Amino acid sequence: MHFADRLQQVETSAIRELFKLLGKPGIISFAGGFPDPAMFDVGGIKAAANQALNDEPGAALQYGATEGYQPLREQLSTFMAAKGAAVAASELIVTTGSQQALDLLGKTMISPGDKVIVEGPTFLATIQCFRLYGADIISAPVDAQGVQTDALEQLIAEHRPKLVYLIPTFGNPSGATLSLERRRRVLELAVQYNTLVVEDDPYGDLYFGEAPPPSLLALSPSVPGSRDLLAHCGSLSKVLSPGLRVGWLIAQPALLANAVMCKQFSDAHTSTFAQATAAQYLKSGRMPATLAHVRQVYGERARAMGQALRRELGDAIEFAEPKGGLFFWARLTGAHGKTKDAAEFAKKAIAQGVAFVPGAPFYAANPDLSTLRLSFATADVAKIEEGIARLGRSL
Amino acid sequence: MHFADRLQQVETSAIRELFKLLGKPGIISFAGGFPDPAMFDVGGIKAAANQALNDEPGAALQYGATEGYQPLREQLSTFMAAKGAAVAASELIVTTGSQQALDLLGKTMISPGDKVIVEGPTFLATIQCFRLYGADIISAPVDAQGVQTDALEQLIAEHRPKLVYLIPTFGNPSGATLSLERRRRVLELAVQYNTLVVEDDPYGDLYFGEAPPPSLLALSPSVPGSRDLLAHCGSLSKVLSPGLRVGWLIAQPALLANAVMCKQFSDAHTSTFAQATAAQYLKSGRMPATLAHVRQVYGERARAMGQALRRELGDAIEFAEPKGGLFFWARLTGAHGKTKDAAEFAKKAIAQGVAFVPGAPFYAANPDLSTLRLSFATADVAKIEEGIARLGRSL
Repeated sequence: MHFADRLQQVETSAIRELFKLLGKPGIISFAGGFPDPAMFDVGGIKAAANQALNDEPGAALQYGATEGYQPLREQLSTFMAAKGAAVAASELIVTTGSQQALDLLGKTMISPGDKVIVEGPTFLATIQCFRLYGADIISAPVDAQGVQTDALEQLIAEHRPKLVYLIPTFGNPSGATLSLERRRRVLELAVQYNTLVVEDDPYGDLYFGEAPPPSLLALSPSVPGSRDLLAHCGSLSKVLSPGLRVGWLIAQPALLANAVMCKQFSDAHTSTFAQATAAQYLKSGRMPATLAHVRQVYGERARAMGQALRRELGDAIEFAEPKGGLFFWARLTGAHGKTKDAAEFAKKAIAQGVAFVPGAPFYAANPDLSTLRLSFATADVAKIEEGIARLGRSL
Repeated sequence: MHFADRLQQVETSAIRELFKLLGKPGIISFAGGFPDPAMFDVGGIKAAANQALNDEPGAALQYGATEGYQPLREQLSTFMAAKGAAVAASELIVTTGSQQALDLLGKTMISPGDKVIVEGPTFLATIQCFRLYGADIISAPVDAQGVQTDALEQLIAEHRPKLVYLIPTFGNPSGATLSLERRRRVLELAVQYNTLVVEDDPYGDLYFGEAPPPSLLALSPSVPGSRDLLAHCGSLSKVLSPGLRVGWLIAQPALLANAVMCKQFSDAHTSTFAQATAAQYLKSGRMPATLAHVRQVYGERARAMGQALRRELGDAIEFAEPKGGLFFWARLTGAHGKTKDAAEFAKKAIAQGVAFVPGAPFYAANPDLSTLRLSFATADVAKIEEGIARLGRSL
């Protein structure tokens, strides 16, 4: 069978291969990118689903508008307003998780050979998603303050990309948060070079102390012309439930209209049952308490992991303490003759009963082989301490 | 903003434009392709959703395997077995409605410029979906016995298509069902020309009297080599609820693996909440009674529409009585100097308070402008009689 040429652009994820090893009994895994299912507000979601089926069974179980279920679009408009972004219900569409928002952006924007700039490192599934549409991916360097805007400007000027994709807040895998100054600069670059910027923001609500700087979307009114050059992807996956597959895409009207046309032929619409459930949940007013709970629990786990890493691995590893999100992004220093090869380290760690993801697959090009990603989301504090102790023994 | 070149292949659906007119109060609509929401087993679905959240809240609300939620794959395997097709759970993947199965087939198989043969007329969203991947669509003629296999063979030999897309049972919009003899011939052609055949089967369970001939999938063991050249798309949308967005794709292993890779970057997976609900519903054993109910109600409505059409429009219209599905496909004969232009007729009908879809948009090429599609699914018998009477007055 002769498959489509576009499949030659991607390969089976190295992470998927690693995940096959995780079935081993007794493994403590820091490898996932999942929220902790113990955080799910099952009672609240069940009540919301029942309410949706009581109030509007016809709508909740029927075909719906490709743009999304109107009561959910209205709730999401309110949700975004609470985060400082004024977005009318008509300015957003509901997507089947934010992964679909990325897919629709690829389908709508990217012709084969188009350049796309991403952070190095960035979310693996974005790289692969855009490559399936023929994108030529360029990496921009990242530090603890997020993408380096001087380097980004040079790359934009040189490559004239179709779009720039960023996870500005608690980046995956970098954990980095773009500074307020750089956020303004990114918006100015969008206008200056007439370049679409995609802000992927699944983690922005998961902060442990102070709230992060406003999203690019919330900031955009302060940089004239930037709002029309900004697409914003949101998701309930990390804060409420990934299984609902409810995400959203905010963009200027022409882009949104084309994304809707592409969505019509991709999956017609997102599950109205899931959308009506999410709408009832947001309407119920339970979300602030849910957010407070996940922030507190993940914050404790992040602190425990940071302390354990310093205690057990000392100067063999370096990292910036994450202020939110789900991940530590760390670098093996090679101190005391220890390994700097994260892939080799991952194999030894699995043998000791602990798993993490080596950083290389997160780079579109020029991987830093000494990097690794550790998620603190799904293990409790005791498991984190035991897991990091095993990691220390592996090194 | 410069959008992707592929968007130039498609245009906003003519049907969508028509649907905007349907908001007019008092319109009786035969235009939709929807099931009747009054048929939804709301109580059964609610019980299934609650059971899913009681039994396995972690799984139902968490990220899941791209291939699908395993208990649902197993239930769908049993469901297919009851329809005469032996399909292991591992031989199918769950998709976000069968529209996504089509999208994944397009993404996996079609390179720009590839030829694809479809029935003329066929499902509009398939044409558009495949065109977004650059397909050059060729139409094969259809009669009351489905696609004409002699003509199909000539087209296959001439165009060497990447795939042939058929709705063999109660086709949309044609209502036609491929005869058993032609089914065998299609499978033989697949083998003879080493051509992938896609069987889209959303309506096969909606028969009013005798069951239709076995699906191509169920027949494939009798034509050696054909099973590997057959992809089958199924859906719960027409028989249980479209709002769940639960469909499935059955194909040979290499094709399925590539479709899974494409799905990973399209929406990661279908809503696990919807999947777990569907799995519990199928497990509950309510489906046979649900199917019996929808068959009986839609059968009555189809008979009522046929009688009313003959009574009210006489020989100004011709059609074959559908034996299942949701649609009458009819042709204006021009008898007694009446119009043969279905688009003109549609406008007059709207003015009289009744809507249907002119047939032209369902053709990839060479539309028959005298054709029209009438759905009997969502109006009860009294509304059908009143609506067809209005149609008679419009002509």
